[in-house]
Amino acid sequence: MLTLASDFGTPYPAAMKGVVLRRTDARLVDVAHDFPRQDVRAAAFWLREVLPEFPPAVHLVVVDPGVGTDRDALVVRAGDHALVGPDNGVLRPPARALAADDGTDATGGADGTDPIEAYVVSVDDPASTTFHGRDVFAPVAADVHEVGADGLATLDRLTPVPVADPVDLRLPAATVTDEGATGEVLVVDDFGNVITNVPGDVIADADEISVNGERVPVGETFASVAPGERLVTVGSHGYVECDVNRGRGDDAFGLAPGDDVTLVS
Amino acid sequence: MLTLASDFGTPYPAAMKGVVLRRTDARLVDVAHDFPRQDVRAAAFWLREVLPEFPPAVHLVVVDPGVGTDRDALVVRAGDHALVGPDNGVLRPPARALAADDGTDATGGADGTDPIEAYVVSVDDPASTTFHGRDVFAPVAADVHEVGADGLATLDRLTPVPVADPVDLRLPAATVTDEGATGEVLVVDDFGNVITNVPGDVIADADEISVNGERVPVGETFASVAPGERLVTVGSHGYVECDVNRGRGDDAFGLAPGDDVTLVS
Amino acid sequence: MLTLASDFGTPYPAAMKGVVLRRTDARLVDVAHDFPRQDVRAAAFWLREVLPEFPPAVHLVVVDPGVGTDRDALVVRAGDHALVGPDNGVLRPPARALAADDGTDATGGADGTDPIEAYVVSVDDPASTTFHGRDVFAPVAADVHEVGADGLATLDRLTPVPVADPVDLRLPAATVTDEGATGEVLVVDDFGNVITNVPGDVIADADEISVNGERVPVGETFASVAPGERLVTVGSHGYVECDVNRGRGDDAFGLAPGDDVTLVS
Repeated sequence: MLTLASDFGTPYPAAMKGVVLRRTDARLVDVAHDFPRQDVRAAAFWLREVLPEFPPAVHLVVVDPGVGTDRDALVVRAGDHALVGPDNGVLRPPARALAADDGTDATGGADGTDPIEAYVVSVDDPASTTFHGRDVFAPVAADVHEVGADGLATLDRLTPVPVADPVDLRLPAATVTDEGATGEVLVVDDFGNVITNVPGDVIADADEISVNGERVPVGETFASVAPGERLVTVGSHGYVECDVNRGRGDDAFGLAPGDDVTLVS
Repeated sequence: MLTLASDFGTPYPAAMKGVVLRRTDARLVDVAHDFPRQDVRAAAFWLREVLPEFPPAVHLVVVDPGVGTDRDALVVRAGDHALVGPDNGVLRPPARALAADDGTDATGGADGTDPIEAYVVSVDDPASTTFHGRDVFAPVAADVHEVGADGLATLDRLTPVPVADPVDLRLPAATVTDEGATGEVLVVDDFGNVITNVPGDVIADADEISVNGERVPVGETFASVAPGERLVTVGSHGYVECDVNRGRGDDAFGLAPGDDVTLVS
Repeated sequence: MLTLASDFGTPYPAAMKGVVLRRTDARLVDVAHDFPRQDVRAAAFWLREVLPEFPPAVHLVVVDPGVGTDRDALVVRAGDHALVGPDNGVLRPPARALAADDGTDATGGADGTDPIEAYVVSVDDPASTTFHGRDVFAPVAADVHEVGADGLATLDRLTPVPVADPVDLRLPAATVTDEGATGEVLVVDDFGNVITNVPGDVIADADEISVNGERVPVGETFASVAPGERLVTVGSHGYVECDVNRGRGDDAFGLAPGDDVTLVS
């Protein structure tokens, strides 16, 4: 199984699929091709949330603002999974989640909290300087699929590197206090739900809470407030969300990715 | 075969696919994930039109404004097909169409016009209150795929219920008269074509017709009028459409879903 | 393998897939369903760029402003590939690219430069006059898949025609001079990159160039200029593109499909 994720829109992902299907008959599954353009952090967040739902697979990830520069092409092993994409940090949060999810004990971080392996891809003379998804990452992902996560060492194009070498993106953590938490907006989903980095248990026992100074009801479900009304809830990923029942939270709260969010009980 | 339909945009459908693919190697086919948000009626219309084109399959449908409330999760059998989704009526119109299409004689409506079976899903402690697509419906759909439409009774989680119990959504019917018809707009498609609930034979013999008081030519094809010109035609689903050749009918006619449409010959 | 491309948005492509899957268990791959509406030239460009990446396949293409008129339905063989769609020229540029790519010597153009075969589809009484994708092209594509590109002559519905008969769309060529080139914008991609028909070697050795009278740096990669800055580069298809690093070239250059572009070194 080989999943594909990018910020390419269409029809560029189809070119990647063609390249892959010349090399393998793997099942292909699209994760998303409309990630916010060149937004490595948003893609890393979504991939961290979504990829652990999958059975063992190769995950081709191309959100790559540095395409054509000397940033490396990477393959990262995380348990029974492998990720292929640019060395800009986008692979690391999902890799950590996949490794944890599989209970793997692959060596990696010295403290055992980051059990992943990293390989740099030898790239010689790609056909383009602007479409490495097609010319570099897709063929490598197909090759990785054919050998499997256990066989990365058998691919001549891959050179193992210390896991500390590649860019290590970490999504920002919220600061939790006795009165609440200070965090930020990670992403806004297609519904307009504002997903923060504040752990859900901050609001677990509250009936209402202040969001940047305004009191808002806390609800377990969207339908706990009337249509069009705001609420704060724990989203499906375990974080505090600022939502509107049958409406858009981003508009109603005036919040966008990167904005600060202060919750006070 | 397992189809997926939702109003989720991306990347939430991928999370459902991951869950499904942990449990079955069924072929997955996307129907649509951009149905109008939380618009049960529009989804029911489209599914009624599209699903009967498929060979026997399990259809996972998540348009679910009541997610997290006590509305039931349903499995509906319609001939060789099964549908999985929330008990808000969205499954019923496609179920009726699938049952009719298959010539099934499964018991159901007392008058034999609604030959479907319904089951309620036992749900204990889903992982979230806002993403039952991932936590409830996807695993059930995978399980249903494994036993097939004939095997629903073998699934411990499913309890048969009288088919009259679940919410029964019926799309509104037009009133046809000697002079024309009074109906309403059901949906507007991505081209801007305005799809009404008026049966196509109302305009079968006309060269032109009044639409809400304005005379408009009737044509068999878009190209029967000049580019940019309005026409009324019989759409691919058999209903009267208000269209523009190479343009948007919704803009030109000023019509939106739910609007009244009166046709006078 | 059977690819699908259209300007249908959703959910109409799913209806085509259902029809196909009733007739074949071919692997289905979406190329794009959001081509600019009824823009035959843009679709032809993208298909010419993308389809040659695929292994031998049947390509179902429905961008069809003349649906329901007497334009023919076509099957075109190009080497090991077959294309199915309306006779409006959209199949020809990808067919030429696929034939060249496969090194085929199938007979076709008298000069050997256009080695393709064409067949007209007998169409009797389709179910609709507005959705031939579902009622004509999808079943034919499934049938073609079952016999393969070598077996087209065995399908009763197909009648071979001289390859000169169908509409022959040719994308416009740029005029290259000693000082630069005069061409036009072919398409704008989802990133806002402005793709012209000027061959990339026109700017191969330049550090900067005039685009419609304004000097713009030439770069090998987006990152060769600061974020938000304009550049001219050679795109992944080999043509000159007018881009912005991490921004939209169409907005910054004020260019849209069909606009003239004059490059002067």
